[in-house]
Amino acid sequence: PRRSYSSVRTLTLGLIPADGIGREVIPAAQQVLNALPSSYQLAFQFKHCEAGFEHFQQHGTALPQQTIDVLRQECDGALFGAVSSPSHKVAGYSSPIVALRKHLDLYANVRPVISTTTGAGEAAMGEKAVDMLIIRENTECLYIKKERQFTDSDGQVKAIAERLITQGASERAGRMAFRMALARQAVREKQPVDQRRWTGPPKVTIVHKSNVLSITDGLWRESIRHVYENTPEFRDQIALEEQLVDSMVYRMFREPEVFDVVVAPNLYGDILSDGAAALVGSLGLVPSANVGDNFVMGEPVHGSAPDIAGQHKANPIAAIRSAALLLENIGLSQPASAIYQAVDTTLRKGFRTPDLGGTATTEEVTEAVCKHLQ
Amino acid sequence: PRRSYSSVRTLTLGLIPADGIGREVIPAAQQVLNALPSSYQLAFQFKHCEAGFEHFQQHGTALPQQTIDVLRQECDGALFGAVSSPSHKVAGYSSPIVALRKHLDLYANVRPVISTTTGAGEAAMGEKAVDMLIIRENTECLYIKKERQFTDSDGQVKAIAERLITQGASERAGRMAFRMALARQAVREKQPVDQRRWTGPPKVTIVHKSNVLSITDGLWRESIRHVYENTPEFRDQIALEEQLVDSMVYRMFREPEVFDVVVAPNLYGDILSDGAAALVGSLGLVPSANVGDNFVMGEPVHGSAPDIAGQHKANPIAAIRSAALLLENIGLSQPASAIYQAVDTTLRKGFRTPDLGGTATTEEVTEAVCKHLQ
Ligand SMILES: CC(C)[C@H](C(=O)O)[C@@H](O)C(=O)O
Ligand SMILES: CC(C)[C@H](C(=O)O)[C@@H](O)C(=O)O
Repeated sequence: PRRSYSSVRTLTLGLIPADGIGREVIPAAQQVLNALPSSYQLAFQFKHCEAGFEHFQQHGTALPQQTIDVLRQECDGALFGAVSSPSHKVAGYSSPIVALRKHLDLYANVRPVISTTTGAGEAAMGEKAVDMLIIRENTECLYIKKERQFTDSDGQVKAIAERLITQGASERAGRMAFRMALARQAVREKQPVDQRRWTGPPKVTIVHKSNVLSITDGLWRESIRHVYENTPEFRDQIALEEQLVDSMVYRMFREPEVFDVVVAPNLYGDILSDGAAALVGSLGLVPSANVGDNFVMGEPVHGSAPDIAGQHKANPIAAIRSAALLLENIGLSQPASAIYQAVDTTLRKGFRTPDLGGTATTEEVTEAVCKHLQ
Repeated sequence: PRRSYSSVRTLTLGLIPADGIGREVIPAAQQVLNALPSSYQLAFQFKHCEAGFEHFQQHGTALPQQTIDVLRQECDGALFGAVSSPSHKVAGYSSPIVALRKHLDLYANVRPVISTTTGAGEAAMGEKAVDMLIIRENTECLYIKKERQFTDSDGQVKAIAERLITQGASERAGRMAFRMALARQAVREKQPVDQRRWTGPPKVTIVHKSNVLSITDGLWRESIRHVYENTPEFRDQIALEEQLVDSMVYRMFREPEVFDVVVAPNLYGDILSDGAAALVGSLGLVPSANVGDNFVMGEPVHGSAPDIAGQHKANPIAAIRSAALLLENIGLSQPASAIYQAVDTTLRKGFRTPDLGGTATTEEVTEAVCKHLQ
């Protein structure tokens, strides 16, 4: 194979800003990617894609087929913004982010919740050093949206949703959690001791509610345990624990410092990761990546925040970190860590949007990140 | 009807300590009830009932029929301790607390999360004045335990659980929330201004995830809205809001002071109330009452805590407050508030178990509460 040390690699990325502040933070992330120093030898080509509730209102679909086709056929990865939720039941509307995860088989949602060591963002919730990675199963649970409504013989209106758990999906989510626990360990070993936030040996916590859902959550937990017990590499190096989802939320707030990697079924993972964002100061800081075997889609954990949309108040950091997480998950860890460091410097220097108690605009924060990239 | 001002009312209460620290905190609550001054003209008769995982291990059932019969036929109310969860799948085991709620049709789980004004227990999470009442629907959602497992034609092991939401159960949970919002308002009006913790007009927040579960959570939210819109008393006096469950957890930790009454489907309510306990310092402080039209069962929100069982470390306050909440919900608000005040005084004076950073034993805290009852 031909190989040249000076060749620039071009990545084609789909951009799907969708609704609300998604349209402000995705351009911010794009600007940061474009500002990466040429020494990283990366060039980007962006494909702008439509999706979202507003698109549904205008065109009758929240996720045009063209978006799926462009992502599948032309892109190396993607960045998704946020979607608005209808405030009343709307016939025919279905969440495009849930559909995209399924169409592209992005089976794990990787959500690092890491406090900024300066204390930026920690003011709200104390000074605990949080360094937690939440792996959320991303394709099943109640998100399969098999729901039906009917009127009973006694005239009662009832609705039923199905919650699906499969051995295969549980195993691959578990495997991802174990692999990431080892990868985090490998990175830590290269860091100076005083910069390490998680300091114990690798640990994975399985979240479930098998005291009530003994069959579905039973299958979830047994499948992950099965992977663990049958993989010497995991079993020998990683500690495995369990938490019931209710007590997990409690413990996460009481002592977030005891968690390393946390693996949860789809809905619990959704709830846990939003909650965990409060620990590091703001939802506006927490990135995620929807990861499959062949595709990665970055996505800030926050929503479309219609109340502040268009006011230059949106915190672009979750989206910027999601872009870095995207790079990291396609094997480009050096430019990713350049972005993480530029973000940390930006926060440390006090460029903060209102959610962090600051007065900086989306644009000012974005420019500061670009300026500090090296 | 014959009526005498000096007659003593006898209440017959079932006591179901169940597992772990349930066996320490239920006797503590019993001791406090027995210590109520005679001026309240209450006498108690206690019926000791069996249930729990240990009972299952010894007798093959976690909830003997006799317990149900005694509660139904002989008791005016009950106090439940806590149940242990099997650490692996155990054939035939099913949670007795979930079954009891169903058998006795205790359709709402009422969980007040109120910070102690001294700051007791607030140290862990800042000094915010939390005064929130969580109403958890208590009979359906994933708790109906309709689960099945099967092997697909492609050899995949799959499991499905059904999540049931009905209009009737949603409406009665909603009605309970609205009624409690008005009752809290009535109590507040009698309090000195500086002792009020929630200071706004009554507000109810509906929690759901209808952006994904448009049919089941759609029915939940529309049913509660329907009650609201068709009841002038509610519509005219109460503000109604909504939160998606993921952002609810986030907001609850960022600004718990903006919530008054929160109404949630069963599983979200379970998760939210455990999480909210972190806001007031410890799960060991938070009571609940399982409320039906004809029966009330008090129950601390915490679990059986096998790690500290038998060590005199269990915080009895959640169980003691659950006893007060039980009295309150059968119309005996004066002895209930005597207990609440004795608890506050006890915490203020520094009698605190290890979960609150103290060194007092279960017995010392219980005795202090008894001593301060007036
Ligand atoms: C918008 C919504 C469907 C979505 C989810 O629940 O997955 C969001 O909360 C998220 O976490 O990405
Ligand atoms: C023990 C368990 C079944 C129970 C529940 O989930 O309801 C407990 O967590 C609670 O909150 O009372």
